[in-house]
Amino acid sequence: MIEQITGAGGKSGADGAQAPIRVGIVGATGYGGLELVRLLSGHPHVTLTYLAASREGGDPVASYFPHLKDITDLTLDQFRPEACAEHCDVVFVALPSGVSGQIAAALWQTGLRVIDLSGDLRIPADLYRTWYRKDPVQPAAQSAAVYGLPEWRAAAIRDASLIANPGCYATAILLGLLPLASAGWLDATRPILIDAKSGVSGAGRTPTQTTHLGELYENFFPYKVGGHQHTPEVEQELGLHQRVQVLMTTQLLPVARGIYTVSYVTLREPADVERVFELYRNSYEGAPFVRLAPPGQVPQMKHVRGSNFCDIGLFVDPRTGVLQVFSAIDNLTKGAAGQAIQNFNLMHGLPETAGLALGPVFP
Amino acid sequence: MIEQITGAGGKSGADGAQAPIRVGIVGATGYGGLELVRLLSGHPHVTLTYLAASREGGDPVASYFPHLKDITDLTLDQFRPEACAEHCDVVFVALPSGVSGQIAAALWQTGLRVIDLSGDLRIPADLYRTWYRKDPVQPAAQSAAVYGLPEWRAAAIRDASLIANPGCYATAILLGLLPLASAGWLDATRPILIDAKSGVSGAGRTPTQTTHLGELYENFFPYKVGGHQHTPEVEQELGLHQRVQVLMTTQLLPVARGIYTVSYVTLREPADVERVFELYRNSYEGAPFVRLAPPGQVPQMKHVRGSNFCDIGLFVDPRTGVLQVFSAIDNLTKGAAGQAIQNFNLMHGLPETAGLALGPVFP
Amino acid sequence: MIEQITGAGGKSGADGAQAPIRVGIVGATGYGGLELVRLLSGHPHVTLTYLAASREGGDPVASYFPHLKDITDLTLDQFRPEACAEHCDVVFVALPSGVSGQIAAALWQTGLRVIDLSGDLRIPADLYRTWYRKDPVQPAAQSAAVYGLPEWRAAAIRDASLIANPGCYATAILLGLLPLASAGWLDATRPILIDAKSGVSGAGRTPTQTTHLGELYENFFPYKVGGHQHTPEVEQELGLHQRVQVLMTTQLLPVARGIYTVSYVTLREPADVERVFELYRNSYEGAPFVRLAPPGQVPQMKHVRGSNFCDIGLFVDPRTGVLQVFSAIDNLTKGAAGQAIQNFNLMHGLPETAGLALGPVFP
Amino acid sequence: MIEQITGAGGKSGADGAQAPIRVGIVGATGYGGLELVRLLSGHPHVTLTYLAASREGGDPVASYFPHLKDITDLTLDQFRPEACAEHCDVVFVALPSGVSGQIAAALWQTGLRVIDLSGDLRIPADLYRTWYRKDPVQPAAQSAAVYGLPEWRAAAIRDASLIANPGCYATAILLGLLPLASAGWLDATRPILIDAKSGVSGAGRTPTQTTHLGELYENFFPYKVGGHQHTPEVEQELGLHQRVQVLMTTQLLPVARGIYTVSYVTLREPADVERVFELYRNSYEGAPFVRLAPPGQVPQMKHVRGSNFCDIGLFVDPRTGVLQVFSAIDNLTKGAAGQAIQNFNLMHGLPETAGLALGPVFP
Repeated sequence: MIEQITGAGGKSGADGAQAPIRVGIVGATGYGGLELVRLLSGHPHVTLTYLAASREGGDPVASYFPHLKDITDLTLDQFRPEACAEHCDVVFVALPSGVSGQIAAALWQTGLRVIDLSGDLRIPADLYRTWYRKDPVQPAAQSAAVYGLPEWRAAAIRDASLIANPGCYATAILLGLLPLASAGWLDATRPILIDAKSGVSGAGRTPTQTTHLGELYENFFPYKVGGHQHTPEVEQELGLHQRVQVLMTTQLLPVARGIYTVSYVTLREPADVERVFELYRNSYEGAPFVRLAPPGQVPQMKHVRGSNFCDIGLFVDPRTGVLQVFSAIDNLTKGAAGQAIQNFNLMHGLPETAGLALGPVFP
Repeated sequence: MIEQITGAGGKSGADGAQAPIRVGIVGATGYGGLELVRLLSGHPHVTLTYLAASREGGDPVASYFPHLKDITDLTLDQFRPEACAEHCDVVFVALPSGVSGQIAAALWQTGLRVIDLSGDLRIPADLYRTWYRKDPVQPAAQSAAVYGLPEWRAAAIRDASLIANPGCYATAILLGLLPLASAGWLDATRPILIDAKSGVSGAGRTPTQTTHLGELYENFFPYKVGGHQHTPEVEQELGLHQRVQVLMTTQLLPVARGIYTVSYVTLREPADVERVFELYRNSYEGAPFVRLAPPGQVPQMKHVRGSNFCDIGLFVDPRTGVLQVFSAIDNLTKGAAGQAIQNFNLMHGLPETAGLALGPVFP
Repeated sequence: MIEQITGAGGKSGADGAQAPIRVGIVGATGYGGLELVRLLSGHPHVTLTYLAASREGGDPVASYFPHLKDITDLTLDQFRPEACAEHCDVVFVALPSGVSGQIAAALWQTGLRVIDLSGDLRIPADLYRTWYRKDPVQPAAQSAAVYGLPEWRAAAIRDASLIANPGCYATAILLGLLPLASAGWLDATRPILIDAKSGVSGAGRTPTQTTHLGELYENFFPYKVGGHQHTPEVEQELGLHQRVQVLMTTQLLPVARGIYTVSYVTLREPADVERVFELYRNSYEGAPFVRLAPPGQVPQMKHVRGSNFCDIGLFVDPRTGVLQVFSAIDNLTKGAAGQAIQNFNLMHGLPETAGLALGPVFP
Repeated sequence: MIEQITGAGGKSGADGAQAPIRVGIVGATGYGGLELVRLLSGHPHVTLTYLAASREGGDPVASYFPHLKDITDLTLDQFRPEACAEHCDVVFVALPSGVSGQIAAALWQTGLRVIDLSGDLRIPADLYRTWYRKDPVQPAAQSAAVYGLPEWRAAAIRDASLIANPGCYATAILLGLLPLASAGWLDATRPILIDAKSGVSGAGRTPTQTTHLGELYENFFPYKVGGHQHTPEVEQELGLHQRVQVLMTTQLLPVARGIYTVSYVTLREPADVERVFELYRNSYEGAPFVRLAPPGQVPQMKHVRGSNFCDIGLFVDPRTGVLQVFSAIDNLTKGAAGQAIQNFNLMHGLPETAGLALGPVFP
């Protein structure tokens, strides 16, 4: 069971309850930021104190986003660093890459704890330049930032004051492959082929021809073929265990939310699916958000919608020996805001599931 | 704000602790039942103790519904009344009309508190026969059942032991029209025309040609024209204030969740939209789940998805004088399971929002 | 049956075959223009000779729209009036209102036959100013333009050189109401209430927040409440028979194509559905694109997709006496490009179905 | 351009007139059969004479399928072999596997030309038993049937009287891979990994839990992992050139129509994308329905919807050397009914595009 986090104190007194942590969100009007608002407004140890956007502001956030009416009465501010310092203990930054990391680094240097949801702090400067074609952030922030994949980096996250929250594709893929890499089971001479699909919210809120419902509805197609910027962070994290190359095919699904990845893996030594399953079961023992489909079953993307779960399935093809790893997440929850809060919980010694004990919305 | 219900305490004593209420769900495998599981498994004053279906059972519910893995570890039972008596203080019954009310009545007569989500207990026997073409339940249960629309029936609900949970369409429509009826503003000589649209989950989980994605996707059409069985409960509740006729056109939207209704109303005396808005504001002062769109704005169906909100908008056409009332709910939450829990909360003296403080899932 | 138009001569000789008509499209890159390309490229009496857009051009149209590869090898031109004069006998203009009519009028004055798909030429200058809030076109063009609803205006269309192609909503609504108006059956003292729904392609190809799949998917909401600019053309055409007011509620469906309207009508004298059906059957005898659902059945939006059909259904509510008229079209075909070609056929003495004998794409 | 087939003439005599070919469809009420009706009712050399289903019949087909009203006035018959013999020159059989081939074989033995859309006649009896787990058809029919992939088997198809129409996935995959196999470019020691996605109409019209819109909408998941029955026909057709193994992952997209496949290929010798493109260009020179995306571009599934095109794109990953082949078709058109008609055209000496010159329906 996801332990029900019923507020261990909440607003209360006597029994040693802590004061709630004051949290701000910079970039509150993107899809990642809106999901942070949804989740943090129900977090038992958090008081949302500051919501900012880069370009607009001045009115209640619910006047821009009517779905937030009676969820938060905060006013949207046009971002001012000094307001963060004044109102927040922790800041989540969810701006576009190229901007987000700069602001995250600057806030962190004022002494705030910062969780950055962009790709700016995840990989070294040279790789960043190659894959993002932008200027990297200052080295101090870059090297201080901890890659926030809680299932594999919990110890470092607990001590961190600056988190590089993983990419949505990278999260699904890494949770699906790290058990193999950490056990040394990958045939490192062969590239791992990853066929990945995402709902449109992964492309952000800005309207484009591609995201127009008229064109995406009843459609499906790849984009950034061979060049998706999550590739280096996947190779980096796998490379802590085994150096392998991955080839990601990223594709757009005509839905709002969800990521589904199929990784085609060559194992160093043949293994049947039960043995692989056993490896995964051991890897994720005690991990509250990873659910393994029994051998013979596959995850469905909708089974995690709105929740922080990552569902994983395994199949070994008897004819070719290829191992397929299936992985499903909600790109805005486990792939962004939910995982950011999971990191926040670890950083603050809270139960990992605080504010995240949400059942998937089905159907 | 929706008050965050952080459990441990509620209305109770010194240490705030109160034993959780033991709750069962009969009909747990339909869409209404599954939504009850989602919501009740996060309710701070509830322990889910019993899940039953009418035809299947014997294995963990998560083996039938993988999205529930780690949400509940209950086993699905093939319904046995004695198991309810043994394990439950309260039972939600969410079976098809014609069966549900019979079982609800029988359980209620054993002394359990019961909330029935079907249409079986909402209207008198003669109307039931006419609109449902089935045999009504026994008169004792029928007359004891309270129509569970909390915004308008709170006092009776608090004292009830048997609840007839309103229909999904009826909920959206009645919340949109009762302020007018209770103020006597309706021109009762004219029928109220209601153009209503629902996502497919309102039609239940059983696969049919109509619900096949191949046929419903990119489609839209009416069904049960002039004969929808929620008509009499709408007229009944309005009729407590003003006797009027309604004509409902119910139509299927190619989406999973959501109801959107437009009611076309002739007022007894002309009124501008500000005056109508004022009436609604007074009517719903303190109602935690009704949100009014400012005059000039309209609700969107997606702005309530996954939440217990009902969003209402108003427009008075200057050319014809017709008042349009727009109303949006999630048919499975405010239109079924969420409202049932709201009733449960009232019946047990809990805060109305306990277990229901969920932000809409957007996008 | 739709008569199969198999080219009565086509490109050929001896037996008195005509040379194909040279046709241009200005505004070829909007949804209406693209649908014209799809349909006209299969028209047996047409040679597409010129495709223009207002802002871009210079490359083959298929390089902008890969779905048109091997359908047309025309190059997209940035619009030049003299190119129309040189290459075309007839021009379809499908630009945004406010621009389209001006260009249509100018081309028409050079002696070309012109069909304008915008709203600019449909209604008198004063109504145009009120509903469109733009400057009307020159009076000569305005008064020469014939409202191109072929089922009701065939004689005038045959003689016309300038056509104002009806609006998409107006087409569905008028085909549903004109039999009543022309027979004088409407109770003209009561407004006709019209609940209308459209797929997103009706809003055009320009990306906006509203058309973003992330926000429209699983959504539904009204827009331009009480103020949709098709209102005056509906009242104008009905008013040729009976002066009535209409109130249109226009709403966005989360699909690409299709319009579905429900008109709520008070009849001057009560009539049962069979009698109403008989009236419609007589009205549309010989109309190749209007299909009547048998009494007791309703049209489905998907049953006309990709075709030029308008499907109509009728229901008289026994309790209130209200007549409901259901009407379904494909907004880009019968609601725009298909109807424009139907007008083109009438203007040129061709069979009304030439180039339009397309079965609906189902599922 | 797709040559416009304007009938009246074809390959025939003095006045161009040729009697139309009398065509029947057995299995007219499935999605493949309905698509045959749509396409054949517009075919200039065909008269549809007989429509049959296995279980129902007796009324006009349009009374079961209102979208076909005014498209065909045929009555649906409960299948009788003698009616085929009486009314038809050619029969398309589009029934479920296990039934379809038996009926196709029986009709063929009465002297009719037959095109079978099922999987029953595509592969040898032993493979059929293994992958379909059903009894194979009689050997005579099996060995007489020609695998109807026109781009690669035109000569044999022209002489055939019994066609095994390819599977929908197999069509997309084979058109994407046969240029490589026929040139001997595949590294046959490595399996080809194929990540394939299909709209729900590929699963047939029978309603199931999986195809319920409530569950498939906003969902995505694999099925028949490692065991899809199109695997052997792909290996068989590639094996005419190079013996290779394929691993297909078949997945369900939440849309009605369309197939998109990504094949991950190891080449025997490295090649850049321009060289691969050149090979494909030569392979498909003159093929009217294969369109190649320029190097650097990818096909989109929606760009072929409703048409008989197969769009192919190519990408060679510079880091891993892996070749990706992207392939998009409409599963009901090029993947079923359209291809069947293409075969029909070849069998009858008609232009390959007769009745198939349809532009994609976009958006």
